[in-house]
Amino acid sequence: MTDQLLNERDLDFLLFDVLKADDLCERSEFSDHNRESLTAALQTAAGIAQEYLLPHNRLLDEDEPQFDGKTVSIRPEVKQAMTAIADAGFLAGRESQEEGGIALPETVMLACMAYFMAANPSTSGYPFLTMAAARLLKNFGSDSLKEHFLPHMQSGRFSGTMALTEPQAGSSLADITTKAIPADDGSYRIKGHKIYISGGDHELTDNIVHMVLAKIEGAPAGVKGISLFVVPKFLLKEDGSLGERNDVALAGLFHKLGYRGTTSTALNFGEKGSCVGYLIGEPHQGLKYMFQMMNEARLGVGLGAASIGYRGYLLSLDYAKGRPQGRSATSRDPLAPPVNIIEHADVRRMLLAQKAYCEGALALTLYGGRLVDDVSSAPQAEADEAQILLDLLTPVMKAWPSEYGVKANDLAIQVYGGAGYTREYPVEQCWRDNRLNPIHEGTNGIQALDLLGRKVWQENGQGLTLLHKRIQNTLSSAPPELEVEVKKLDALIKQVAAVTATVGAAMQKSGPDVALSNAASYLHLVGHTAVAWLWLMQAAEAQHLLKATDASNDEAVAFYSGKLQACRFFYRHELPLVQRDVDLLMSGDTTTLDMQSNWF
Amino acid sequence: MTDQLLNERDLDFLLFDVLKADDLCERSEFSDHNRESLTAALQTAAGIAQEYLLPHNRLLDEDEPQFDGKTVSIRPEVKQAMTAIADAGFLAGRESQEEGGIALPETVMLACMAYFMAANPSTSGYPFLTMAAARLLKNFGSDSLKEHFLPHMQSGRFSGTMALTEPQAGSSLADITTKAIPADDGSYRIKGHKIYISGGDHELTDNIVHMVLAKIEGAPAGVKGISLFVVPKFLLKEDGSLGERNDVALAGLFHKLGYRGTTSTALNFGEKGSCVGYLIGEPHQGLKYMFQMMNEARLGVGLGAASIGYRGYLLSLDYAKGRPQGRSATSRDPLAPPVNIIEHADVRRMLLAQKAYCEGALALTLYGGRLVDDVSSAPQAEADEAQILLDLLTPVMKAWPSEYGVKANDLAIQVYGGAGYTREYPVEQCWRDNRLNPIHEGTNGIQALDLLGRKVWQENGQGLTLLHKRIQNTLSSAPPELEVEVKKLDALIKQVAAVTATVGAAMQKSGPDVALSNAASYLHLVGHTAVAWLWLMQAAEAQHLLKATDASNDEAVAFYSGKLQACRFFYRHELPLVQRDVDLLMSGDTTTLDMQSNWF
Repeated sequence: MTDQLLNERDLDFLLFDVLKADDLCERSEFSDHNRESLTAALQTAAGIAQEYLLPHNRLLDEDEPQFDGKTVSIRPEVKQAMTAIADAGFLAGRESQEEGGIALPETVMLACMAYFMAANPSTSGYPFLTMAAARLLKNFGSDSLKEHFLPHMQSGRFSGTMALTEPQAGSSLADITTKAIPADDGSYRIKGHKIYISGGDHELTDNIVHMVLAKIEGAPAGVKGISLFVVPKFLLKEDGSLGERNDVALAGLFHKLGYRGTTSTALNFGEKGSCVGYLIGEPHQGLKYMFQMMNEARLGVGLGAASIGYRGYLLSLDYAKGRPQGRSATSRDPLAPPVNIIEHADVRRMLLAQKAYCEGALALTLYGGRLVDDVSSAPQAEADEAQILLDLLTPVMKAWPSEYGVKANDLAIQVYGGAGYTREYPVEQCWRDNRLNPIHEGTNGIQALDLLGRKVWQENGQGLTLLHKRIQNTLSSAPPELEVEVKKLDALIKQVAAVTATVGAAMQKSGPDVALSNAASYLHLVGHTAVAWLWLMQAAEAQHLLKATDASNDEAVAFYSGKLQACRFFYRHELPLVQRDVDLLMSGDTTTLDMQSNWF
Repeated sequence: MTDQLLNERDLDFLLFDVLKADDLCERSEFSDHNRESLTAALQTAAGIAQEYLLPHNRLLDEDEPQFDGKTVSIRPEVKQAMTAIADAGFLAGRESQEEGGIALPETVMLACMAYFMAANPSTSGYPFLTMAAARLLKNFGSDSLKEHFLPHMQSGRFSGTMALTEPQAGSSLADITTKAIPADDGSYRIKGHKIYISGGDHELTDNIVHMVLAKIEGAPAGVKGISLFVVPKFLLKEDGSLGERNDVALAGLFHKLGYRGTTSTALNFGEKGSCVGYLIGEPHQGLKYMFQMMNEARLGVGLGAASIGYRGYLLSLDYAKGRPQGRSATSRDPLAPPVNIIEHADVRRMLLAQKAYCEGALALTLYGGRLVDDVSSAPQAEADEAQILLDLLTPVMKAWPSEYGVKANDLAIQVYGGAGYTREYPVEQCWRDNRLNPIHEGTNGIQALDLLGRKVWQENGQGLTLLHKRIQNTLSSAPPELEVEVKKLDALIKQVAAVTATVGAAMQKSGPDVALSNAASYLHLVGHTAVAWLWLMQAAEAQHLLKATDASNDEAVAFYSGKLQACRFFYRHELPLVQRDVDLLMSGDTTTLDMQSNWF
């Protein structure tokens, strides 16, 4: 079984040939770095993934965290991995050196995280949640809160969580009922129940810092009354050392299909009436703050889905190359030796589809990282553009990889055949782990509503205009060998524009119900368009590099040829499927809207 | 949580309104029955499923069979269920009363099995394998073998298995190496290793009767040298009582992703050189015999996939009807009470897709049952037609439901959201259990090769001509309300004919490689066509019955309206996707064929 987590050459190609990540080092924010140091960071991440994450991925799945009514026990390898990631500086990977970080661009940081996710998504959950919580605190917390918590979160001594969901509300945050009552000392007393809180309790770190959404007494109804609080598991003394246990209690663990190593908890806040919380930023602005973090988390979900998909792809590729079985359709001599199954066209189809999905999804999410970097480091006009495009594409970058990552893992199982269905082989775990990604951080249905109900219309629809413009740049600079793909993508982006105009006019005229009932089709259409664009970018670069490569360099020739073929596959086998979506949207299909609940 | 396994009204509609199963009672083979007795059989099956199968479905998943190196232990409920199924006569459900059976038509028998599968696929495995092995023995075994084994298999005292797969050969049966050496007494000594043998060892029954593929010494190479043997776990004495242990040893259990309650075993035959086997039928004809059983098993796999899909659909429907969350897009008042999630269009889309997939797949596989009944009981010309059509559609009836059953279960998880990802809810098990179905009894890739490489060309392509003719009958008798769907299906079946002609000509001219590299697309195209046909049949019947129904009969009106809407959904949202397949096949796409192994 291969221990390859991602294709290093592919990552190098995506980061430096396609996304020009090293150009970022010319900007002051990333001036500590050069291509060598970025590559070194990637190698460090790859090394940690191999040494500290991969070896216990299956063990943790089989021996998931246990709650004995008092404490949660987790295999010791998880803490060791958390420590290794912290010690290498990744918990503050994106912060400047003055802020205790290593100032990595998000583009490269995501690639590092991709290694961790491919190796062990469950264990990766703990550091990733901690990083997200720390950034939320850093961006919106008071100096005092930052001083008390941030250094410990960045060093891995404290971990973090996001506490949003409540049993009665689910995805509808407007309906949360967790209360925050002002106390005399300026803090609050929190009271309520939260569920599905990943990393919500464990003994991995000295303290757990919960980022909790709650409503201050008397706040407006709905999402406009939501505030954000820091609620530590242990209160801190004046000197910053650990004080008494806060009134946050673990009610129980959920037992998941996959991602079993990340505890999913039900937490009770303030059962004894003494749960201390500290307001972050202004009252009633909590959802806005949370969404900044959430948008990064959504990109992270897409990246994780791509990474788990990628790992499954490499595993099934390795299996297909080494498993002899059967013969070709034209060579049925039973005495001839069997061929490796990669020689069967249908197996190659399943591998090509995985390659097209996972390398496409990885490219898309790394592109998202590049946009994040441009927002923070590019000249103002470019930064503004990047922000608009990032807002538009965030639901796509969450949903598309999470849908196609699971599909890729499904194909990986199928390549293995009967073996893939057993727990003796690793691909079934990839499939189970990845299945969380279309659900958490906003289900894909919610991403679709976010895209068609909000994002495309923001800033007067500039996002789509910008996407169109950038796609046109790719089209006009593509080499002549890609003429067919250029024509297809050109036609497609025009269809997207036409669909959007038609749907927008219909929404103006008759309200959003019909259009939003087909939001899933719109998300699929824009997702396929974005991934087709990223594939054309890759193919164009591969074509250029192929021409410049000595024909005797077999490995390079094979790599670029594979990129070109995967691009062709995506355009021929995948892209035609969106015609269904175009037709449904253009015709204002009302099939799901007309369906009555009692007709089922 | 609902304990509804299938929609009884739907089953009644499919069996009696659409497939006219009661007409079968006019034929001598089924003359013991009438509609009442068939309905009684269905109710008996439903009752057994509720009482003996459903309650331990999750328990068995969590507490899978264990092998301590000596014996396999399985939860006691499995044996109780096996006994209940046997006592109700279902193990010999299709045999005549003289043969100890209850002479049920296959159409109805499949519907009974659908209840068992929906309730507990793992436990159902044991009786179903026993039934398949018994029918193999009945059709091809000597009188002596039948006399010794058959009554005990039909009573449930003995169980049966199918032992085909070997570690080095996998799906390539030509490469099996298990040997059969003639002994002086007319029996054989078997020697070899088999894997993935479901039900291969346990203590549920007094004896286990393995149907083993092996090669007699000196047999021709490849599939032409395969013979079929009965290899019991315990030899029988002259008087038929249990004798000594045969030389069949359990090497170990495989641990599966789902279907955990059905033991999957590695068996060693003849480690001590004394494994006794009895030849079934003629030497070297084993694969032919096995394929008769296999074809029925493939229909059973499709049915099982539809049933597990159906169960997940009903569970998610029940959840969606009772789970309040969020508000409609046009009613954002946070003080308004939340609506049940079934009111959200995207949830209805996911439920409609499940309904279209599962009721479509169930209709298709029950139609397969009707073909089986026509083969055995219709006048000769009709029986011949049914056989040709059954041969053509078998790969479709196996592959389509197994692909779309898993998709349906995926959507069921998504409807539940976070809850669906936990093992506290049942849909994740449906998804895991169902994932076996695209793999076993010939992977879907093999079904595609079987369809495009063999089945469509058999009998001079009569199968497709017959399908076309039957579809035309449905089209010409459909009510005017279905005009749109009639036109679409008419165009589609003509496209199928055109694609087949083009592909056939290309295969004649240039060999099969290009065509077969797109076999998956052909299978998808024919599968969608067949299911679209079954949906039109259902819609036509529903439209007729709707007209004849009193408008005050809310329940009936809702049921028929739902059938019509699901049909519309399939035609609008699913059917357009096959245009991709048509284009790939018509253009002789070579993308997967051109891909080189070292380019990955």
